[in-house]
Amino acid sequence: MKKFDAKDTAVLESILLHRRDVRGNHFLPQRLPQEVVDQILFAAVNAPSVGFSQPWEFVLIDDTEIKKAVKATFEIENENAKQQFDEKQDLYTQLKLEGIMEAPLNVAVFYNEKKQPVLGQTSMYQMGEYSVICAIQNMWLMARSLNVGLGWVSIIDPEKITSILNVPSNRKLIGYLCLGYVDVFHDRPELELLKWEKRKKMSEVIFTNGYTKR
Amino acid sequence: MKKFDAKDTAVLESILLHRRDVRGNHFLPQRLPQEVVDQILFAAVNAPSVGFSQPWEFVLIDDTEIKKAVKATFEIENENAKQQFDEKQDLYTQLKLEGIMEAPLNVAVFYNEKKQPVLGQTSMYQMGEYSVICAIQNMWLMARSLNVGLGWVSIIDPEKITSILNVPSNRKLIGYLCLGYVDVFHDRPELELLKWEKRKKMSEVIFTNGYTKR
Repeated sequence: MKKFDAKDTAVLESILLHRRDVRGNHFLPQRLPQEVVDQILFAAVNAPSVGFSQPWEFVLIDDTEIKKAVKATFEIENENAKQQFDEKQDLYTQLKLEGIMEAPLNVAVFYNEKKQPVLGQTSMYQMGEYSVICAIQNMWLMARSLNVGLGWVSIIDPEKITSILNVPSNRKLIGYLCLGYVDVFHDRPELELLKWEKRKKMSEVIFTNGYTKR
Repeated sequence: MKKFDAKDTAVLESILLHRRDVRGNHFLPQRLPQEVVDQILFAAVNAPSVGFSQPWEFVLIDDTEIKKAVKATFEIENENAKQQFDEKQDLYTQLKLEGIMEAPLNVAVFYNEKKQPVLGQTSMYQMGEYSVICAIQNMWLMARSLNVGLGWVSIIDPEKITSILNVPSNRKLIGYLCLGYVDVFHDRPELELLKWEKRKKMSEVIFTNGYTKR
């Protein structure tokens, strides 16, 4: 049975802490080697999945016309989003929130819903989608260990992506990712550095034996 | 800027590949040291979150009466679930699908919905919940690197958990986790070993530039 030691834990912790969400202002144009892409996808398919259903699908995108179409849905959604951040609107407008064109590789990640019942998914149906998220988080960490940046673009219209990529009707878009080498990984999340949000204290989010006692 | 090397990648890959979903038949009763619990929670709060919203909350549970109440909801849900697996029902009945009582620590993980709009969550609302899943996957990997088993119990009624733990009304249960040291980590997922599901080939789930071309 494999036993890990304190040095292994330290490596994992360092990767977790240095993982960043990377936007277009930091991607370099060089293509990712195929073996690097394969390692990232191998991490994905070894994520946990409810009932070992492995309900994930990955569409690799390097076609400029497709990227342009995706970028167009970002522009519309982002214009709508901006209106919602009253006093923070100026800061919002200055933020670079995607790297669709700049990143050499985009990956659209889908949930492939099974027709038959899935073990473990009978009471909490979202477990299928949650498995896909675990795969994305594995990709994110593996990418970081390979010094590859990953940015998750969520300001898009999933229905438009579905049409752009000829997605079969029982698939659901879970995440749209941009990947590539970077000029820099920030030491802290960009939104923390820019004081968009403060880091919460651990004591704020941890409770014991229910919400009445801390 | 932190650069990782091939040895770091190998450590991460090994942790990813040796991570298992652990059930009650493998947990040891000894309490987890506080510093081990702290390391796992530290990994959680360093997960990515949409708009740096950190929308997660963790309820640590070691109280036997609370565990018993949670176990009771599992029993009801599992009885209902069993009926759905026609020809696989015998195998389903033999499976141990949780470790609520056996694991020394249970952790209920909640999504704390923000009242104000969240950057990045304006078009895909589920991004808040997805951030919580990233935190759980970080916990799972950190636990494995510390040779701690983690099992995710999803055959429960979230509404009953909410009432058992006095959860405020705007929280949503995302995951219910069991943690503890184990007698063994299987080399492969238990449901693969038992031939409940087959492992998919990577070529089955990877597409290029849309679903029509592979």
